Amino acid sequence: MSEQFSSAERSTFYHIVESRRDVRAFRSDPVPEDVLFRILNAAHHAPSVGLMQPWNFIVIQDPATRAAIKSVFVRENDRAAAVYTGDRAALYGSLKLEGIEEAPINLCVTSDRTRSGPHVLGRNTIIDTDLYSTCCAIQNLWLAARAEGVGVGWVSILDNDDLRRLLEIPPTVEPVAYLCLGYAQEFLDEPELQRRGWATRLPLSDLLFSNRWGNRLPLPLSDPTLLGKRPIG
Amino acid sequence: MSEQFSSAERSTFYHIVESRRDVRAFRSDPVPEDVLFRILNAAHHAPSVGLMQPWNFIVIQDPATRAAIKSVFVRENDRAAAVYTGDRAALYGSLKLEGIEEAPINLCVTSDRTRSGPHVLGRNTIIDTDLYSTCCAIQNLWLAARAEGVGVGWVSILDNDDLRRLLEIPPTVEPVAYLCLGYAQEFLDEPELQRRGWATRLPLSDLLFSNRWGNRLPLPLSDPTLLGKRPIG
Repeated sequence: MSEQFSSAERSTFYHIVESRRDVRAFRSDPVPEDVLFRILNAAHHAPSVGLMQPWNFIVIQDPATRAAIKSVFVRENDRAAAVYTGDRAALYGSLKLEGIEEAPINLCVTSDRTRSGPHVLGRNTIIDTDLYSTCCAIQNLWLAARAEGVGVGWVSILDNDDLRRLLEIPPTVEPVAYLCLGYAQEFLDEPELQRRGWATRLPLSDLLFSNRWGNRLPLPLSDPTLLGKRPIG
Repeated sequence: MSEQFSSAERSTFYHIVESRRDVRAFRSDPVPEDVLFRILNAAHHAPSVGLMQPWNFIVIQDPATRAAIKSVFVRENDRAAAVYTGDRAALYGSLKLEGIEEAPINLCVTSDRTRSGPHVLGRNTIIDTDLYSTCCAIQNLWLAARAEGVGVGWVSILDNDDLRRLLEIPPTVEPVAYLCLGYAQEFLDEPELQRRGWATRLPLSDLLFSNRWGNRLPLPLSDPTLLGKRPIG
């Protein structure tokens, strides 16, 4: 499996990466089971510390469970909204931040902190590497969904204790992400928070350092073949 | 940018996902700057909570810094190895778990926990969502590297306090990953820990639940078109 990918194949990959969005508006038609399975299979092929594979995927279809989770969102979102005032408060209130009840699929992704027993290769000092592995699985899932035309929205305005209770998740298992999935009404050409004026993408060059924090890395950023040819969205 | 990807393009994507490996053995030829830039640009196009973009990328070339980080690895790895006995200890000792001094590129990926100020949209209850976003960036980077023929190895047998000191990382910034990058000598057709008999990939069907923890999800796993056609590596 050591084969190389062609320039066209790399472009396809980068196009998937750059056109992936946090999606909140879904079509109502269902996602076929084989499509869901391919997406989950991509997640399962993520790297994990010591091949721990700490993830589980809970598919939530039950309307009563979804309604209960939605009410947790509403409570936490009211709390979050209270920190803003004026125009910022109005803008916050106008943003659609979840699709819990209307998305064809809800998915809770968890990390079992005890999987593989007490000693996991590579997880002796930095214990949260199991959570980090699970996030790698989530990003595989997100990109696979984009390749399938399926939108994913990460609903982070929730409370993990409530998720544990509602989904009967054991105390040794951490809920990492609550995702809404469905065919996207649209993939915007830039992040919605940027389009709506909430935040903007930072210049990559500001984020690169050499040898130590704060020491700017010189990269050929002025070369237009690097920044200009592909859509930056 | 709402276009769909073709079946062939989806297959390319899944092939990249399934042939990605944790690589420890690198060729010595350098990774060109434009290739590194494309990989970092893919990382920068990851999702982030509230478009927080908390990541930074520190490229470490300085030999003295690398030697100091290698000595942290050696110390932590000696501690880790001490928990194994007999055949397991011998196998552990035979595994190559880092490529700090020989990899053409070392990269520390961090998460600035104060970026975007005190209120980040979507980060009011689950505070670690900034770390989770940074892990999504790492997975974008890892897949982009695979598409470029570049191997990535995550060295997790380190200590974050030492990394902070050696790389002058401020206390409000969390080191999330220390990565070694370079053209791979080989991409194995299965994870190295599986090939060496340390661990095996779990059946995906064991990891899927419906509506609540422990309630097995029925998926069309017996359909050979779903599990058999693509290489599972």
